[in-house]
Amino acid sequence: MEGETIVKERRILVAVDESEESMYALSWCLNDLLSLHTNTNTTVLLLYVKPPPPAYSSLDATEYIFAGDAIASMEKYSRDLAHSVMSRAEEVYRDFHPRVKVEKKVGSGDAKEVICVAVEKLGADILVMGSHDYGFFKRALLGSVSDYCTKHVKCPLVVVKRPKNV
Amino acid sequence: MEGETIVKERRILVAVDESEESMYALSWCLNDLLSLHTNTNTTVLLLYVKPPPPAYSSLDATEYIFAGDAIASMEKYSRDLAHSVMSRAEEVYRDFHPRVKVEKKVGSGDAKEVICVAVEKLGADILVMGSHDYGFFKRALLGSVSDYCTKHVKCPLVVVKRPKNV
Repeated sequence: MEGETIVKERRILVAVDESEESMYALSWCLNDLLSLHTNTNTTVLLLYVKPPPPAYSSLDATEYIFAGDAIASMEKYSRDLAHSVMSRAEEVYRDFHPRVKVEKKVGSGDAKEVICVAVEKLGADILVMGSHDYGFFKRALLGSVSDYCTKHVKCPLVVVKRPKNV
Repeated sequence: MEGETIVKERRILVAVDESEESMYALSWCLNDLLSLHTNTNTTVLLLYVKPPPPAYSSLDATEYIFAGDAIASMEKYSRDLAHSVMSRAEEVYRDFHPRVKVEKKVGSGDAKEVICVAVEKLGADILVMGSHDYGFFKRALLGSVSDYCTKHVKCPLVVVKRPKNV
């Protein structure tokens, strides 16, 4: 390897979901965070987290059949949603590819917990996510993914707020 | 200006205080965040916020004299602290200067509010701050500056956690 310049790989994990805010965060990451970085070896890891499958533990046979249909239908919906989110993301990063390497990851479970685990497992150097700007009640009910991640991830976290006029 | 490449100036506001966490955030900003921006015209704005001066509104003459001394002494302490923080910051950014322009700003008041106002007034593109990782009780008492800023600043916010082994 003598004489070669070894450029350290940077791994940026971008958490994406159905929201415009997350697509804006991805776009900001590509346009601003990575702007003009011709020398670096960067991989963008796109992470979409599906909600956990519902648990049915105490159902009789009839309910089970019904529940079976419902679960299959929800799972299809969940897969479709993941596909739709990744397709939207592809539109956003198309112009940057292949200059920036992109890897897609789909997880399942509580989004904030899955994101924190993924940061560790995928060896991310930076975590980027959109800010949903929920109102007080929605935030109180749902909790804030970014607040949780601020406290639990070990790498730097970028919270990107979408301007009102975009 | 024909034929010239005009590189947009980027203004990165780094909130610094007495903590090791904020110095680590500044160091991460220079070493990692800016290494993604090798060609850009970047200014790092270092912001230190002094606590607000105490308010004495209903003092008699004797107390006033005493309070006057105490205030002068606290103000000196506050100035010394600001000077000490900026000196520590200088050690951190010395090797990057003059490649990266650095401007120092000192504010006074409630840190989280002053930081949010400064982001707007100074036209910052990114806000960088350390994560103090306080325990539950200290966080409940003091509130979290980064939580407040996540909700109130309009630009992307980077929260940098200092690894345990640094």
